[in-house]
Amino acid sequence: MVGFSHGAVIRRQLFLTRCLGGYNSSSTNICYSSAVKMQSSASGGGGGGAWPEVDAVTILRSITPSLDTSRHKGQAGKIAVVGGCREYTGAPYFAAISALKIGADLSHVFCTKDAATVIKSYSPELIVHPILEESYSVREEDKKSISAKVIEEVDKWMERFDCLVIGPGLGRDPFLLDCVSEIMKHAKRSNVPMVIDGDGLFLVTNSLDLISGYHLAVLTPNVNEYKRLVQKVLECEVNDRDGTQQLLSLVKGIGGVTILRKGASDLISDGETVSAVSSFGSPRRCGGQGDILSGSVAVFISWARQCTEKRELSAGPTVLGCIAGSVLLRKAASHAFDSKRRSTLTTDIIEHLGESLEELCPVSE
Amino acid sequence: MVGFSHGAVIRRQLFLTRCLGGYNSSSTNICYSSAVKMQSSASGGGGGGAWPEVDAVTILRSITPSLDTSRHKGQAGKIAVVGGCREYTGAPYFAAISALKIGADLSHVFCTKDAATVIKSYSPELIVHPILEESYSVREEDKKSISAKVIEEVDKWMERFDCLVIGPGLGRDPFLLDCVSEIMKHAKRSNVPMVIDGDGLFLVTNSLDLISGYHLAVLTPNVNEYKRLVQKVLECEVNDRDGTQQLLSLVKGIGGVTILRKGASDLISDGETVSAVSSFGSPRRCGGQGDILSGSVAVFISWARQCTEKRELSAGPTVLGCIAGSVLLRKAASHAFDSKRRSTLTTDIIEHLGESLEELCPVSE
Repeated sequence: MVGFSHGAVIRRQLFLTRCLGGYNSSSTNICYSSAVKMQSSASGGGGGGAWPEVDAVTILRSITPSLDTSRHKGQAGKIAVVGGCREYTGAPYFAAISALKIGADLSHVFCTKDAATVIKSYSPELIVHPILEESYSVREEDKKSISAKVIEEVDKWMERFDCLVIGPGLGRDPFLLDCVSEIMKHAKRSNVPMVIDGDGLFLVTNSLDLISGYHLAVLTPNVNEYKRLVQKVLECEVNDRDGTQQLLSLVKGIGGVTILRKGASDLISDGETVSAVSSFGSPRRCGGQGDILSGSVAVFISWARQCTEKRELSAGPTVLGCIAGSVLLRKAASHAFDSKRRSTLTTDIIEHLGESLEELCPVSE
Repeated sequence: MVGFSHGAVIRRQLFLTRCLGGYNSSSTNICYSSAVKMQSSASGGGGGGAWPEVDAVTILRSITPSLDTSRHKGQAGKIAVVGGCREYTGAPYFAAISALKIGADLSHVFCTKDAATVIKSYSPELIVHPILEESYSVREEDKKSISAKVIEEVDKWMERFDCLVIGPGLGRDPFLLDCVSEIMKHAKRSNVPMVIDGDGLFLVTNSLDLISGYHLAVLTPNVNEYKRLVQKVLECEVNDRDGTQQLLSLVKGIGGVTILRKGASDLISDGETVSAVSSFGSPRRCGGQGDILSGSVAVFISWARQCTEKRELSAGPTVLGCIAGSVLLRKAASHAFDSKRRSTLTTDIIEHLGESLEELCPVSE
């Protein structure tokens, strides 16, 4: 770890664990690492370098709200996914249904008309708004008015949402991405957190201004998306020998966002610390797991923000949300793989979200 | 309970229980309160104030028809849900399928064309009429003729229905709501009971004449919908210290309808008494549970009306239907939550309706 005080990281992580603690890990059946653990670069396909393993389960527990019969609809979270086009319908569905399966009360999808019928038919639990348009269905002279209408439709809802997920199955149609850029600007003005994944990362990598300096933005890049971000922001290649330092530089280069770098270990940084979540997940790499992660992180961020209104936490809600989402996905993927082996698909993992959350954070506690 | 004779309520409830009774509660595995029970305001997040806990299970049993091989299709209830638009398809589906899962013979949905394809795809059990229209698909000059056509289509069916559910996923399009207002006027003229929820409540709160004085109308507001009703009718804020009295005033202010105020305890009033159902349900507040309730209440009202044709009951069919619907939803939600915990969704609760009804009112009895 070059140019970065490792002692400071350890102290901060220990402080984080103490602040969030209160559970006796040894009394549970969950196996997680010590609060701070060094890993060799050889073991970390996702990041390289040394990084502090965070006590992710304690963090997940600390931000997950207790269930209380006096609460009413909406208080456990209202999430919206912006994504779904002519080609992609699975990704936004995975993100939106994962949010509900974890415990959000309402989950919306904003997508194109073609995608809407299909996404609605996957599940009656989602509220699907068929409002986005792609270039092929819009005449040049209508673009301005249609764009204004799209923004107006989303704006009606914006302040009701606790978090947006931008990108699952968004596609790369230029007109559609222009509209989504506007939606992101409005979300920023309304102080609504955004988790940005998939084609949303393609969009922001080419338009960093959209998120630069916005401390409620979370980017969740996979290997290739991370590579493009590093090339764009740091103007160099990914350096796996010093992954921690490069991640910190990248976050600082963009300015104030949080990045969850997906890999064999997930690395999470807001520019101040780097945390790793490395608990065993599944060796299957079927498409769609990133969508579960983005939907889950959105819910956990909402919950962490509710906590920070009541008490001081030792890390920001975006970092805590990423850590909790990462450890939950890994647990659910591990259960799904135990049951389905090579046949494990994203829907199988989603089916294990509830049971996994119950194991990590039982309702009765 | 200020300004409300508690002794009279106790006598009326005891009379109600005697009239409807005949079951020995101690011989079942159902835990329910004594016929009349006072609760402190602290325990009732939904209402506040003291209220009489009703013997909901006995009421449910008393109105649920025995199954008899001599009966033919339709006799156990024909329900229609008016709802489902471009944005919402889950809500009308939940209401309509719940009606069937409880025991109705036929369940119809009247919705827009866009919604119809999706709702049909959720289940082949439903009869879905794609007849409603939203402003965006109608030219100004066609509105009158289209509206007339919509009413004509619904009128063909109106007298066959035992109860309508107005509102699940209806949306707030002005043209669509105008058509639904006409449907409600026709239902009223035909003496068809109506359960009004969701956007149907938005409609009637702004047009109280639609239901004022109609004793077969049931409103099922949640916290926010109740707040808007109180503001509109009583021109004041919700008073949780004296919730019972305010509910009676609200019912009287609207004139002769029945209100089921949803909350930690459900409070039900037709302006004469207030009954509470507080049995444990689920602490999950995922969207859609209100739709199960509206569909269930519609079926129980139909059944209660069949009973009143044969024998005198001590409360009107709307009150009895609300009580039975409330206790059944709570039982089903409780079972779903036992199994799915934080991951509990509305479809999970629907899957437990049959088993819950069998527990509360076994077919063999």
